Amino acid sequence: MTELRIAIVGFGKIARDQHVGAIAAVPGATLAAVASRNASLPDLPHFATIEELLEKGPPIDAVSLCTPPQVRRAQAVAALRAGKHVMLEKPPGAGVAELDPLIAMAGETKRTLFATWHSRHAPAVEPAREWLAARRIRSVHVNWKEDVRVWHPGQAWIWEPGGLGVFDPGINALSILTRILPKPVFVNAAELAFPANCQAPIAAKLTLTDIDGLPVTAEFDFRQTGPQSWDILVETDQGRMTLSRGGRIMAIDGKTVAEAPDEEYRELYRHFVALAATGASDVDLAPLRLVADAFLLGRRTIVEPFVG
Amino acid sequence: MTELRIAIVGFGKIARDQHVGAIAAVPGATLAAVASRNASLPDLPHFATIEELLEKGPPIDAVSLCTPPQVRRAQAVAALRAGKHVMLEKPPGAGVAELDPLIAMAGETKRTLFATWHSRHAPAVEPAREWLAARRIRSVHVNWKEDVRVWHPGQAWIWEPGGLGVFDPGINALSILTRILPKPVFVNAAELAFPANCQAPIAAKLTLTDIDGLPVTAEFDFRQTGPQSWDILVETDQGRMTLSRGGRIMAIDGKTVAEAPDEEYRELYRHFVALAATGASDVDLAPLRLVADAFLLGRRTIVEPFVG
Repeated sequence: MTELRIAIVGFGKIARDQHVGAIAAVPGATLAAVASRNASLPDLPHFATIEELLEKGPPIDAVSLCTPPQVRRAQAVAALRAGKHVMLEKPPGAGVAELDPLIAMAGETKRTLFATWHSRHAPAVEPAREWLAARRIRSVHVNWKEDVRVWHPGQAWIWEPGGLGVFDPGINALSILTRILPKPVFVNAAELAFPANCQAPIAAKLTLTDIDGLPVTAEFDFRQTGPQSWDILVETDQGRMTLSRGGRIMAIDGKTVAEAPDEEYRELYRHFVALAATGASDVDLAPLRLVADAFLLGRRTIVEPFVG
Repeated sequence: MTELRIAIVGFGKIARDQHVGAIAAVPGATLAAVASRNASLPDLPHFATIEELLEKGPPIDAVSLCTPPQVRRAQAVAALRAGKHVMLEKPPGAGVAELDPLIAMAGETKRTLFATWHSRHAPAVEPAREWLAARRIRSVHVNWKEDVRVWHPGQAWIWEPGGLGVFDPGINALSILTRILPKPVFVNAAELAFPANCQAPIAAKLTLTDIDGLPVTAEFDFRQTGPQSWDILVETDQGRMTLSRGGRIMAIDGKTVAEAPDEEYRELYRHFVALAATGASDVDLAPLRLVADAFLLGRRTIVEPFVG
């Protein structure tokens, strides 16, 4: 197998916490360079920008864009124009429509565009999807509450326009939801709580449904101290399914039926290596479309300023 | 030709100002009933709700939904389930994703779903599209400013979540823009001015672009007194094209080259009659997607309360 030589672009928390280790662990993937304004890795070619990387860097086949969503589109265009496969951290863009020309460009040049949703690769997600496919679903509740100070320290971009605020973790829940439910859901109503000093919400409540009127509610909150929640509860005609710890544990009526260690990012890179072998793309915009709709039709309230 | 028997649902300003006259003027279309909480027309069957219309009304083939966007989806589902063709006023929904199941349902039942963009049928739009197709476009500016008190008297829904505010007229400009430009555009940045007492913006500035970096700017304002503007200016390698009066007049370097009386809504109903003859659908979500993206990645400012 030819190694896929990957450069990480944007070397912040997620790149250090997840991408470096995942690339090292996945056969067929090699970390070949880093492009980042400030950060670098010992013994690895380093460049300040993607342009410099593409112009002066070592030979690479692919880039993994770990930059904030607001700057990722231009970087993806540059990489695709240079003939590289592109992997996008979530969310895949600052807006939905900006993805269309990237998808078209990747298709024309036979390069892979992979919009990742790491939470979909949590170990209990597929078992949950399969279990639900054989049941009648009565209601769904998503409870996704975490402490932004713990999980997003110093990430100022998250509060800027296009940074999504609490939807940055919330979109993980939506990426699981849109995977495990048998029919597409859409947003009926939303309440968005914006800190007075921020351009993105710190908390949100969503009401979603599908064509059959399935009641789906979601609560996202960035102000959760103490126990953290990344849970999806599904009531069915054959009991309550709980997907907890961000998709890592599945339980039926309180009894754990699936649990495995987290390999989300390894799965992403395994999939990226497989996609790049044929130049196929994998871009599902459903989770980002739901967030855009929540912003479009949501009721905004202003809450107390956020102090990081 | 069999007459398409149409019921108007939602009998507000746009239904009275445009739909009734257009249906009367278009061969093959007949107004058969009205469903509206309060308003009715003399000599025409009247029902309070679409459910009552579908249950007790005269035979109809189609409904034209002129209700506010927030309630239209449920009405469209009811109509499609009853086997009726459906025409949607703009915007086609309160959110983008809610259209997906409607499109699927229309396809499965071979009924027409027609998401209308009346401004696309303004007489100078097609000449403008054809003229631009043969030129190199350098920049685009949209100037869409009107007095909300004149054009939307008493329309409280426009300020509610999902009501779009200044994007209610602004989406008309975006519907023309997405029709006349040769490549898809997307939103790069947006500024949204929300009155302190409203859930929808009263003014907006957008920066858009396409894959080639075309500079496109748009200014929408609901506070325009005096002269009103519904103009799109396009600089090309062969002069400046101006599309003014909402797409009714096209000029090149100040010289009018196309101008015709407004038949926008007649064109819509001619198209609806033609679509319904085969059960084909026509749903282009591009304008609404741009608005959703503007809300998603826009910078919000709070401005003085709006007093209607």
